[in-house]
Amino acid sequence: MSFQKNTVVYSLLSSLPSNDRLLSQLLFIKEIDSLKNVWRHTMLIDRSRKENDAEHSWEMAMMALILKEYFSSAVDTDKVIRMLLVHDLVEIYAGDTYVYDQEATPTQSERERQAANTLFGLLPADQSQEFRSLWEEFEARQTNESCMARALDRFQPLLHSYLTEGETWKMNSVDAHSVRKIMHVIGEASPALGKLSDSIIEESINRGYLRN
Amino acid sequence: MSFQKNTVVYSLLSSLPSNDRLLSQLLFIKEIDSLKNVWRHTMLIDRSRKENDAEHSWEMAMMALILKEYFSSAVDTDKVIRMLLVHDLVEIYAGDTYVYDQEATPTQSERERQAANTLFGLLPADQSQEFRSLWEEFEARQTNESCMARALDRFQPLLHSYLTEGETWKMNSVDAHSVRKIMHVIGEASPALGKLSDSIIEESINRGYLRN
Repeated sequence: MSFQKNTVVYSLLSSLPSNDRLLSQLLFIKEIDSLKNVWRHTMLIDRSRKENDAEHSWEMAMMALILKEYFSSAVDTDKVIRMLLVHDLVEIYAGDTYVYDQEATPTQSERERQAANTLFGLLPADQSQEFRSLWEEFEARQTNESCMARALDRFQPLLHSYLTEGETWKMNSVDAHSVRKIMHVIGEASPALGKLSDSIIEESINRGYLRN
Repeated sequence: MSFQKNTVVYSLLSSLPSNDRLLSQLLFIKEIDSLKNVWRHTMLIDRSRKENDAEHSWEMAMMALILKEYFSSAVDTDKVIRMLLVHDLVEIYAGDTYVYDQEATPTQSERERQAANTLFGLLPADQSQEFRSLWEEFEARQTNESCMARALDRFQPLLHSYLTEGETWKMNSVDAHSVRKIMHVIGEASPALGKLSDSIIEESINRGYLRN
């Protein structure tokens, strides 16, 4: 899919005196505004509603700033932040896949790969490559930076679930075994946050927020 | 105001086996989740609703990545991104002030200073200083980084207003003179985006989105 040219927004952007490169960048900015309408399962901590991917991505970047001391000092935090800013962009086309959804997860990778082709293809070639690399590095989880990013991406919904008394876990009949299986990446990247996550899971079971 | 200790969330966080430092950081993460409920005047590009400060901050950081080539090559983009991630945090307590609101803007600075004391005071001293410095640098607009951040913070609502056919301008009876006065900081930091902004304003007048 290329950008739909028969829309008001395309007509408005293409009537500005910009070159092809700037037009591509503006069209990309327009397209990623849709991340604000991709809804996740995670509740806001005040329980007023679910959060969307754009808000989530902001919180992830903030968590990287706030919690960086619990990860290897060799990590380039600024790169982790760039990675977290773009890590969910593919969900604009592929949708959010709930980490405990056993039906959706097998097709997730292919859906997201196609979405990446479409979305990053809107950008000029050099930036397309830059953004795609960040996303692929996040997905592959082979570098210190991507391990930290992934750990935070798991820790955030765990913290929100605990602070909202397990609302999302209960709604989706999630049990402690499934949570532990998903959360092991936290301890691999950060022993301190791994220990904290274990405590959150235990405390959640004790308080009846999470089925054992 | 210090953090309210008689809340469920405080009790949940303080019952985890963490030290004072980690507890402060978790309380701060909890507190800034409220940025997702600070609503701006800017509409999403699909016009479905207004955006909130957390989504806005994410979009700002993305714009810094996408449009960095139009600013001085001396700019540290990663610092601009960190600045944009935190630039609206004080609005959790001070609220969003519409840039064209002549009644609210005179008190804005003092309200935001008090909010900064309260909010950043939740963090351990070193991080409190780090975040506060980023915010103060943004506000003072004396460095290349803060000039870029401020320019993007003005350009984003301009672009959204244009792409939503001036909905917010019309609703608030904003005229071209007021918009031009606010937007001059864009051209000061980026001649290319300044020229683009001028075109957006002219095109908006021509199309009847903005009163001349």
